[in-house]
Amino acid sequence: MKAIALLGGPKEEWTNEIQTVFKEAKKNGDLVIGVDRGSYLLEELGIMPDLAIGDFDSLKKEELTKIESNVKDIRYSNPVKDWTDSELMIKSVFAGYNAKSLTIYGATGGRIDHFLVNLFMFLNPEIKKYAEKVTLIDQQNLIRFFLPGHHVITKEKDYPYFGVASLAAIQNLNISKAKYFLENYSGDYPRVFASNEFRQDRDEFELDFDSGFISVIFSKDIDKFEHAMN
Amino acid sequence: MKAIALLGGPKEEWTNEIQTVFKEAKKNGDLVIGVDRGSYLLEELGIMPDLAIGDFDSLKKEELTKIESNVKDIRYSNPVKDWTDSELMIKSVFAGYNAKSLTIYGATGGRIDHFLVNLFMFLNPEIKKYAEKVTLIDQQNLIRFFLPGHHVITKEKDYPYFGVASLAAIQNLNISKAKYFLENYSGDYPRVFASNEFRQDRDEFELDFDSGFISVIFSKDIDKFEHAMN
Repeated sequence: MKAIALLGGPKEEWTNEIQTVFKEAKKNGDLVIGVDRGSYLLEELGIMPDLAIGDFDSLKKEELTKIESNVKDIRYSNPVKDWTDSELMIKSVFAGYNAKSLTIYGATGGRIDHFLVNLFMFLNPEIKKYAEKVTLIDQQNLIRFFLPGHHVITKEKDYPYFGVASLAAIQNLNISKAKYFLENYSGDYPRVFASNEFRQDRDEFELDFDSGFISVIFSKDIDKFEHAMN
Repeated sequence: MKAIALLGGPKEEWTNEIQTVFKEAKKNGDLVIGVDRGSYLLEELGIMPDLAIGDFDSLKKEELTKIESNVKDIRYSNPVKDWTDSELMIKSVFAGYNAKSLTIYGATGGRIDHFLVNLFMFLNPEIKKYAEKVTLIDQQNLIRFFLPGHHVITKEKDYPYFGVASLAAIQNLNISKAKYFLENYSGDYPRVFASNEFRQDRDEFELDFDSGFISVIFSKDIDKFEHAMN
Protein backbone atom coordinates (compact mmCIF):
# COMPACT_ATOMS: atom_id res chain seq x y z
CA MET A 1 0.00 0.00 0.00
CA LYS A 2 1.13 3.53 -0.80
CA ALA A 3 0.57 6.35 1.68
CA ILE A 4 0.18 10.11 1.33
CA ALA A 5 0.09 12.64 4.17
CA LEU A 6 -0.74 16.29 4.64
CA LEU A 7 0.95 18.18 7.46
CA GLY A 8 -0.08 21.60 8.74
CA GLY A 9 2.38 23.82 6.82
CA PRO A 10 1.08 26.90 4.98
CA LYS A 11 -1.04 26.40 1.84
CA GLU A 12 1.23 28.80 -0.06
CA GLU A 13 3.82 26.00 -0.21
CA TRP A 14 1.41 23.47 -1.70
CA THR A 15 1.78 22.39 -5.31
CA ASN A 16 -1.03 23.50 -7.62
CA GLU A 17 -2.29 19.98 -8.19
CA ILE A 18 -2.45 18.93 -4.53
CA GLN A 19 -6.22 18.35 -4.48
CA THR A 20 -6.06 16.14 -7.57
CA VAL A 21 -3.17 14.15 -6.10
CA PHE A 22 -5.02 13.41 -2.86
CA LYS A 23 -8.31 12.62 -4.66
CA GLU A 24 -6.46 10.24 -6.97
CA ALA A 25 -4.80 8.58 -3.96
CA LYS A 26 -8.16 8.14 -2.26
CA LYS A 27 -9.60 6.60 -5.42
CA ASN A 28 -6.66 4.19 -5.68
CA GLY A 29 -7.14 3.00 -2.11
CA ASP A 30 -3.89 4.53 -0.86
CA LEU A 31 -3.67 5.37 2.83
CA VAL A 32 -4.49 9.08 3.27
CA ILE A 33 -3.22 10.71 6.46
CA GLY A 34 -3.80 14.11 8.02
CA VAL A 35 -1.38 15.30 10.66
CA ASP A 36 -2.76 17.78 13.16
CA ARG A 37 -4.12 20.82 11.25
CA GLY A 38 -3.45 18.83 8.04
CA SER A 39 -6.47 16.65 8.90
CA TYR A 40 -8.76 19.65 8.79
CA LEU A 41 -7.13 21.05 5.65
CA LEU A 42 -7.83 17.72 3.92
CA GLU A 43 -11.48 17.92 4.90
CA GLU A 44 -11.58 21.44 3.47
CA LEU A 45 -10.29 19.97 0.19
CA GLY A 46 -13.16 17.47 0.27
CA ILE A 47 -10.93 14.54 1.20
CA MET A 48 -11.58 12.43 4.28
CA PRO A 49 -8.31 11.13 5.78
CA ASP A 50 -8.16 7.43 6.68
CA LEU A 51 -5.86 8.24 9.58
CA ALA A 52 -5.58 11.46 11.62
CA ILE A 53 -2.69 12.05 14.03
CA GLY A 54 -1.94 14.95 16.36
CA ASP A 55 -2.71 16.76 19.55
CA PHE A 56 -5.07 18.88 17.44
CA ASP A 57 -4.45 21.88 19.68
CA SER A 58 -4.42 24.20 16.66
CA LEU A 59 -8.01 23.21 15.77
CA LYS A 60 -11.21 24.84 16.94
CA LYS A 61 -13.61 22.58 18.84
CA GLU A 62 -16.05 22.22 15.94
CA GLU A 63 -13.19 21.45 13.52
CA LEU A 64 -12.00 18.64 15.78
CA THR A 65 -15.54 17.34 16.28
CA LYS A 66 -15.94 17.04 12.53
CA ILE A 67 -12.74 15.01 12.27
CA GLU A 68 -13.71 12.83 15.23
CA SER A 69 -17.05 11.94 13.69
CA ASN A 70 -15.66 11.15 10.23
CA VAL A 71 -12.17 9.66 10.52
CA LYS A 72 -11.90 5.94 11.22
CA ASP A 73 -8.47 5.87 12.87
CA ILE A 74 -7.54 8.79 15.11
CA ARG A 75 -4.32 8.75 17.14
CA TYR A 76 -3.95 11.43 19.78
CA SER A 77 -0.48 12.62 20.67
CA ASN A 78 0.59 14.28 23.88
CA PRO A 79 1.72 17.92 23.47
CA VAL A 80 4.56 17.29 25.95
CA LYS A 81 6.04 14.22 24.40
CA ASP A 82 9.06 12.33 23.17
CA TRP A 83 7.64 11.80 19.67
CA THR A 84 6.53 14.69 17.52
CA ASP A 85 3.28 14.33 15.54
CA SER A 86 5.31 13.85 12.35
CA GLU A 87 7.42 11.09 13.90
CA LEU A 88 4.33 9.35 15.26
CA MET A 89 2.87 9.52 11.76
CA ILE A 90 5.94 7.90 10.16
CA LYS A 91 5.89 5.08 12.71
CA SER A 92 2.15 4.51 12.25
CA VAL A 93 2.41 4.47 8.46
CA PHE A 94 5.31 2.01 8.23
CA ALA A 95 5.16 -0.06 11.43
CA GLY A 96 1.36 0.08 11.83
CA TYR A 97 0.01 0.08 8.26
CA ASN A 98 3.07 -1.48 6.63
CA ALA A 99 3.01 1.02 3.75
CA LYS A 100 5.63 0.61 1.04
CA SER A 101 6.06 4.36 0.36
CA LEU A 102 4.97 7.71 1.76
CA THR A 103 4.65 11.13 0.12
CA ILE A 104 4.35 14.11 2.46
CA TYR A 105 2.89 17.53 1.65
CA GLY A 106 2.69 20.52 4.00
CA ALA A 107 6.03 19.82 5.70
CA THR A 108 7.72 23.07 4.64
CA GLY A 109 7.26 26.82 4.96
CA GLY A 110 5.97 28.85 7.87
CA ARG A 111 7.70 28.36 11.19
CA ILE A 112 11.24 27.20 10.47
CA ASP A 113 11.55 25.15 13.66
CA HIS A 114 8.58 23.10 12.44
CA PHE A 115 10.21 22.52 9.06
CA LEU A 116 13.49 21.47 10.68
CA VAL A 117 11.61 18.97 12.86
CA ASN A 118 10.23 17.43 9.66
CA LEU A 119 13.71 17.30 8.12
CA PHE A 120 15.86 16.28 11.10
CA MET A 121 13.44 13.62 12.38
CA PHE A 122 14.82 11.31 9.69
CA LEU A 123 18.11 11.21 11.63
CA ASN A 124 16.35 9.52 14.54
CA PRO A 125 17.28 5.82 14.15
CA GLU A 126 13.64 4.79 14.75
CA ILE A 127 12.57 6.93 11.78
CA LYS A 128 15.73 6.70 9.66
CA LYS A 129 15.06 3.07 8.81
CA TYR A 130 12.01 4.22 6.79
CA ALA A 131 13.64 7.34 5.30
CA GLU A 132 14.38 5.94 1.83
CA LYS A 133 10.64 5.27 1.34
CA VAL A 134 9.66 8.89 2.00
CA THR A 135 9.35 11.91 -0.32
CA LEU A 136 8.57 15.47 0.83
CA ILE A 137 7.00 17.76 -1.78
CA ASP A 138 6.24 21.46 -1.92
CA GLN A 139 5.67 23.91 -4.79
CA GLN A 140 9.38 24.31 -5.53
CA ASN A 141 11.17 21.34 -3.92
CA LEU A 142 11.10 17.56 -3.80
CA ILE A 143 13.15 15.96 -1.03
CA ARG A 144 14.37 12.37 -0.80
CA PHE A 145 16.64 10.60 1.69
CA PHE A 146 19.50 8.15 1.34
CA LEU A 147 21.31 5.77 3.67
CA PRO A 148 24.99 4.81 3.17
CA GLY A 149 25.80 2.92 -0.02
CA HIS A 150 25.86 3.49 -3.76
CA HIS A 151 22.84 5.20 -5.32
CA VAL A 152 21.93 5.95 -8.92
CA ILE A 153 19.55 8.86 -8.62
CA THR A 154 17.09 9.58 -11.39
CA LYS A 155 15.96 13.06 -12.38
CA GLU A 156 12.55 14.05 -11.09
CA LYS A 157 10.45 15.47 -13.91
CA ASP A 158 10.42 19.30 -13.95
CA TYR A 159 13.16 19.64 -11.30
CA PRO A 160 16.39 20.62 -13.11
CA TYR A 161 18.45 21.47 -9.99
CA PHE A 162 19.47 19.47 -6.98
CA GLY A 163 21.42 19.98 -3.79
CA VAL A 164 23.03 17.22 -1.74
CA ALA A 165 22.61 17.87 1.97
CA SER A 166 24.69 15.90 4.42
CA LEU A 167 22.61 16.15 7.59
CA ALA A 168 25.13 14.65 10.03
CA ALA A 169 28.74 13.52 10.23
CA ILE A 170 29.66 11.81 6.95
CA GLN A 171 32.47 9.72 5.48
CA ASN A 172 33.63 9.45 1.87
CA LEU A 173 30.84 11.25 0.07
CA ASN A 174 31.11 11.15 -3.71
CA ILE A 175 28.86 12.86 -6.24
CA SER A 176 29.51 11.84 -9.83
CA LYS A 177 28.03 12.04 -13.33
CA ALA A 178 26.41 15.38 -12.43
CA LYS A 179 27.33 18.92 -13.58
CA TYR A 180 29.53 19.38 -10.51
CA PHE A 181 31.24 16.44 -8.87
CA LEU A 182 32.62 15.86 -5.40
CA GLU A 183 35.26 13.34 -4.34
CA ASN A 184 35.81 11.70 -0.97
CA TYR A 185 34.33 14.41 1.21
CA SER A 186 34.24 13.65 4.92
CA GLY A 187 32.96 16.03 7.59
CA ASP A 188 31.86 16.18 11.20
CA TYR A 189 28.85 18.45 10.80
CA PRO A 190 25.97 19.12 8.35
CA ARG A 191 26.88 20.71 5.03
CA VAL A 192 25.05 21.30 1.77
CA PHE A 193 26.43 21.02 -1.73
CA ALA A 194 23.81 23.18 -3.42
CA SER A 195 22.87 24.27 -6.94
CA ASN A 196 24.03 21.17 -8.76
CA GLU A 197 22.36 20.15 -12.02
CA PHE A 198 21.84 17.06 -14.11
CA ARG A 199 24.08 16.92 -17.16
CA GLN A 200 22.39 17.71 -20.44
CA ASP A 201 23.04 14.22 -21.73
CA ARG A 202 22.06 12.33 -18.56
CA ASP A 203 18.91 11.88 -16.47
CA GLU A 204 20.85 10.32 -13.60
CA PHE A 205 23.67 11.12 -11.26
CA GLU A 206 25.49 8.90 -8.78
CA LEU A 207 25.95 9.29 -5.08
CA ASP A 208 27.85 7.16 -2.63
CA PHE A 209 29.04 7.42 0.94
CA ASP A 210 30.27 5.05 3.65
CA SER A 211 28.51 6.48 6.68
CA GLY A 212 26.19 9.39 7.39
CA PHE A 213 22.81 10.43 6.07
CA ILE A 214 21.97 12.32 2.90
CA SER A 215 19.00 14.33 1.79
CA VAL A 216 18.79 15.17 -1.92
CA ILE A 217 16.75 18.31 -2.55
CA PHE A 218 15.47 18.55 -6.13
CA SER A 219 14.26 22.03 -7.02
CA LYS A 220 13.03 24.32 -9.76
CA ASP A 221 12.70 28.04 -10.29
CA ILE A 222 9.17 29.34 -10.08
CA ASP A 223 7.53 32.66 -10.53
CA LYS A 224 5.77 32.89 -7.18
CA PHE A 225 3.38 35.57 -8.35
CA GLU A 226 2.27 33.48 -11.28
CA HIS A 227 1.93 30.50 -8.97
CA ALA A 228 -0.31 32.46 -6.60
CA MET A 229 -2.51 33.46 -9.52
CA ASN A 230 -3.03 29.89 -10.75
CA MET B 1 29.68 49.55 12.46
CA LYS B 2 26.47 47.60 12.01
CA ALA B 3 25.81 45.69 8.79
CA ILE B 4 22.66 44.59 6.98
CA ALA B 5 22.48 42.27 3.98
CA LEU B 6 19.91 41.18 1.45
CA LEU B 7 20.26 37.73 -0.13
CA GLY B 8 18.39 36.51 -3.19
CA GLY B 9 15.54 34.57 -1.51
CA PRO B 10 11.94 35.18 -2.63
CA LYS B 11 10.28 38.50 -1.80
CA GLU B 12 7.29 36.65 -0.35
CA GLU B 13 9.45 35.89 2.69
CA TRP B 14 10.42 39.51 3.30
CA THR B 15 8.99 41.37 6.27
CA ASN B 16 6.58 44.18 5.40
CA GLU B 17 8.92 46.91 6.63
CA ILE B 18 12.04 45.74 4.76
CA GLN B 19 12.40 48.87 2.64
CA THR B 20 12.18 51.15 5.69
CA VAL B 21 14.73 49.02 7.55
CA PHE B 22 17.31 49.24 4.74
CA LYS B 23 16.67 52.97 4.15
CA GLU B 24 17.12 53.63 7.86
CA ALA B 25 20.35 51.59 7.85
CA LYS B 26 21.67 53.58 4.88
CA LYS B 27 20.82 56.85 6.66
CA ASN B 28 22.62 55.69 9.80
CA GLY B 29 25.78 54.87 7.88
CA ASP B 30 25.47 51.11 8.42
CA LEU B 31 27.16 48.84 5.88
CA VAL B 32 24.52 47.74 3.33
CA ILE B 33 25.32 44.56 1.39
CA GLY B 34 23.64 42.86 -1.54
CA VAL B 35 24.45 39.22 -2.22
CA ASP B 36 24.03 38.07 -5.80
CA ARG B 37 20.43 38.78 -6.90
CA GLY B 38 19.98 40.61 -3.58
CA SER B 39 22.13 43.45 -4.97
CA TYR B 40 19.66 44.03 -7.76
CA LEU B 41 16.64 43.67 -5.46
CA LEU B 42 18.12 46.41 -3.25
CA GLU B 43 18.48 48.70 -6.25
CA GLU B 44 14.83 47.98 -7.10
CA LEU B 45 13.94 49.16 -3.57
CA GLY B 46 15.84 52.40 -4.25
CA ILE B 47 18.78 51.44 -2.02
CA MET B 48 22.34 51.35 -3.32
CA PRO B 49 24.40 48.65 -1.59
CA ASP B 50 27.85 49.64 -0.30
CA LEU B 51 29.11 46.16 -1.02
CA ALA B 52 27.90 43.62 -3.62
CA ILE B 53 29.04 40.01 -3.58
CA GLY B 54 28.29 37.14 -5.91
CA ASP B 55 28.88 35.44 -9.21
CA PHE B 56 25.80 37.40 -10.39
CA ASP B 57 24.92 34.61 -12.81
CA SER B 58 21.22 35.04 -12.05
CA LEU B 59 21.29 38.67 -13.28
CA LYS B 60 20.66 39.92 -16.80
CA LYS B 61 23.55 41.82 -18.39
CA GLU B 62 21.93 45.24 -17.98
CA GLU B 63 21.09 44.49 -14.34
CA LEU B 64 24.73 43.66 -13.63
CA THR B 65 25.95 46.72 -15.56
CA LYS B 66 23.79 48.92 -13.34
CA ILE B 67 25.33 47.41 -10.22
CA GLU B 68 28.84 47.66 -11.61
CA SER B 69 28.46 51.35 -12.35
CA ASN B 70 26.95 52.24 -8.98
CA VAL B 71 28.39 50.03 -6.25
CA LYS B 72 31.73 51.03 -4.74
CA ASP B 73 32.94 47.61 -3.56
CA ILE B 74 32.11 44.60 -5.75
CA ARG B 75 33.51 41.16 -4.96
CA TYR B 76 33.12 38.51 -7.62
CA SER B 77 32.85 34.90 -6.56
CA ASN B 78 33.63 31.86 -8.64
CA PRO B 79 30.58 29.66 -9.38
CA VAL B 80 32.73 26.56 -8.85
CA LYS B 81 34.19 27.42 -5.49
CA ASP B 82 34.98 26.44 -1.95
CA TRP B 83 33.15 29.40 -0.45
CA THR B 84 29.49 30.09 -1.17
CA ASP B 85 28.42 33.69 -1.81
CA SER B 86 26.86 33.83 1.64
CA GLU B 87 30.06 32.60 3.32
CA LEU B 88 32.15 35.09 1.36
CA MET B 89 29.77 37.81 2.52
CA ILE B 90 30.11 36.85 6.21
CA LYS B 91 33.91 36.85 5.93
CA SER B 92 33.95 40.21 4.13
CA VAL B 93 31.60 41.82 6.66
CA PHE B 94 33.46 40.71 9.78
CA ALA B 95 37.08 40.17 8.71
CA GLY B 96 37.10 42.87 6.01
CA TYR B 97 34.80 45.59 7.33
CA ASN B 98 35.09 44.65 11.01
CA ALA B 99 31.33 45.03 11.56
CA LYS B 100 30.03 44.45 15.07
CA SER B 101 26.71 42.89 14.01
CA LEU B 102 24.94 41.66 10.87
CA THR B 103 21.25 41.27 10.06
CA ILE B 104 20.39 39.16 7.02
CA TYR B 105 17.18 39.24 4.98
CA GLY B 106 16.34 37.06 1.98
CA ALA B 107 18.04 33.93 3.37
CA THR B 108 14.90 31.77 3.55
CA GLY B 109 12.19 30.40 1.29
CA GLY B 110 12.42 29.18 -2.27
CA ARG B 111 14.94 26.46 -2.99
CA ILE B 112 15.48 24.55 0.22
CA ASP B 113 19.10 23.65 -0.57
CA HIS B 114 19.83 27.40 -0.72
CA PHE B 115 18.20 27.97 2.66
CA LEU B 116 20.14 25.09 4.21
CA VAL B 117 23.40 26.56 2.89
CA ASN B 118 22.54 29.78 4.71
CA LEU B 119 21.79 27.86 7.90
CA PHE B 120 24.52 25.21 7.91
CA MET B 121 27.33 27.60 6.86
CA PHE B 122 27.47 28.76 10.47
CA LEU B 123 28.86 25.32 11.39
CA ASN B 124 31.95 26.02 9.30
CA PRO B 125 34.61 27.02 11.87
CA GLU B 126 35.66 29.99 9.70
CA ILE B 127 32.08 31.33 9.84
CA LYS B 128 31.04 29.98 13.23
CA LYS B 129 33.31 32.41 15.05
CA TYR B 130 31.06 35.26 13.85
CA ALA B 131 27.73 33.41 14.31
CA GLU B 132 26.66 35.05 17.57
CA LYS B 133 26.76 38.45 15.86
CA VAL B 134 24.34 37.41 13.11
CA THR B 135 20.52 37.50 12.92
CA LEU B 136 18.45 36.08 10.04
CA ILE B 137 14.98 37.58 9.57
CA ASP B 138 11.97 36.68 7.43
CA GLN B 139 8.27 37.47 7.69
CA GLN B 140 7.61 34.78 10.28
CA ASN B 141 10.98 33.85 11.82
CA LEU B 142 13.97 35.43 13.50
CA ILE B 143 17.04 33.19 13.84
CA ARG B 144 20.01 33.63 16.16
CA PHE B 145 23.03 31.41 16.87
CA PHE B 146 24.80 30.38 20.07
CA LEU B 147 28.16 28.87 20.90
CA PRO B 148 28.71 26.64 23.96
CA GLY B 149 28.21 28.30 27.33
CA HIS B 150 25.41 29.79 29.41
CA HIS B 151 23.01 32.17 27.68
CA VAL B 152 20.13 34.27 28.97
CA ILE B 153 17.98 34.76 25.90
CA THR B 154 15.58 37.67 25.74
CA LYS B 155 12.24 37.57 23.98
CA GLU B 156 12.18 39.18 20.57
CA LYS B 157 9.22 41.57 20.32
CA ASP B 158 6.23 40.03 18.50
CA TYR B 159 7.73 36.50 18.42
CA PRO B 160 5.92 34.45 21.09
CA TYR B 161 7.29 31.02 20.08
CA PHE B 162 10.76 29.63 19.81
CA GLY B 163 12.46 26.40 18.84
CA VAL B 164 15.94 25.33 19.90
CA ALA B 165 17.76 23.62 17.03
CA SER B 166 20.91 21.67 17.77
CA LEU B 167 22.65 21.68 14.39
CA ALA B 168 25.43 19.19 15.17
CA ALA B 169 26.55 16.77 17.86
CA ILE B 170 25.83 18.32 21.27
CA GLN B 171 26.61 17.70 24.92
CA ASN B 172 24.59 18.61 28.01
CA LEU B 173 21.98 20.87 26.51
CA ASN B 174 19.68 22.51 29.08
CA ILE B 175 16.68 24.74 28.40
CA SER B 176 15.24 26.35 31.50
CA LYS B 177 12.83 29.10 32.64
CA ALA B 178 10.74 28.53 29.48
CA LYS B 179 7.31 26.88 29.09
CA TYR B 180 8.96 23.53 28.35
CA PHE B 181 12.33 22.65 29.82
CA LEU B 182 15.01 20.18 28.83
CA GLU B 183 17.72 18.68 31.03
CA ASN B 184 21.13 17.33 30.06
CA TYR B 185 20.35 16.31 26.52
CA SER B 186 23.27 14.97 24.51
CA GLY B 187 23.06 13.71 20.95
CA ASP B 188 25.18 12.77 17.95
CA TYR B 189 23.07 14.35 15.22
CA PRO B 190 20.91 17.47 14.63
CA ARG B 191 17.63 17.68 16.49
CA VAL B 192 15.06 20.40 17.06
CA PHE B 193 13.12 21.10 20.22
CA ALA B 194 10.29 23.04 18.60
CA SER B 195 7.20 24.98 19.66
CA ASN B 196 8.49 26.23 22.98
CA GLU B 197 7.18 29.50 24.41
CA PHE B 198 8.25 32.16 26.84
CA ARG B 199 6.51 31.92 30.19
CA GLN B 200 3.77 34.45 30.77
CA ASP B 201 5.69 36.04 33.64
CA ARG B 202 9.12 36.07 31.97
CA ASP B 203 10.68 37.71 28.93
CA GLU B 204 13.77 35.50 29.10
CA PHE B 205 14.71 31.86 29.06
CA GLU B 206 18.04 30.20 29.72
CA LEU B 207 20.10 27.93 27.55
CA ASP B 208 23.35 26.19 28.24
CA PHE B 209 25.43 23.46 26.66
CA ASP B 210 29.01 22.21 26.89
CA SER B 211 29.76 21.56 23.22
CA GLY B 212 27.88 21.82 19.95
CA PHE B 213 26.11 24.62 18.14
CA ILE B 214 22.62 26.00 18.69
CA SER B 215 20.26 27.99 16.55
CA VAL B 216 17.28 29.57 18.29
CA ILE B 217 14.38 30.15 15.92
CA PHE B 218 11.91 32.72 17.21
CA SER B 219 8.59 32.64 15.35
CA LYS B 220 5.06 33.93 15.17
CA ASP B 221 1.83 32.90 13.53
CA ILE B 222 0.83 35.00 10.56
CA ASP B 223 -2.08 35.11 8.23
CA LYS B 224 -0.22 34.81 4.94
CA PHE B 225 -3.11 36.09 2.89
CA GLU B 226 -3.36 39.22 5.01
CA HIS B 227 0.41 39.62 4.78
CA ALA B 228 0.32 39.45 0.98
CA MET B 229 -2.34 42.13 0.94
CA ASN B 230 -0.35 44.60 3.05
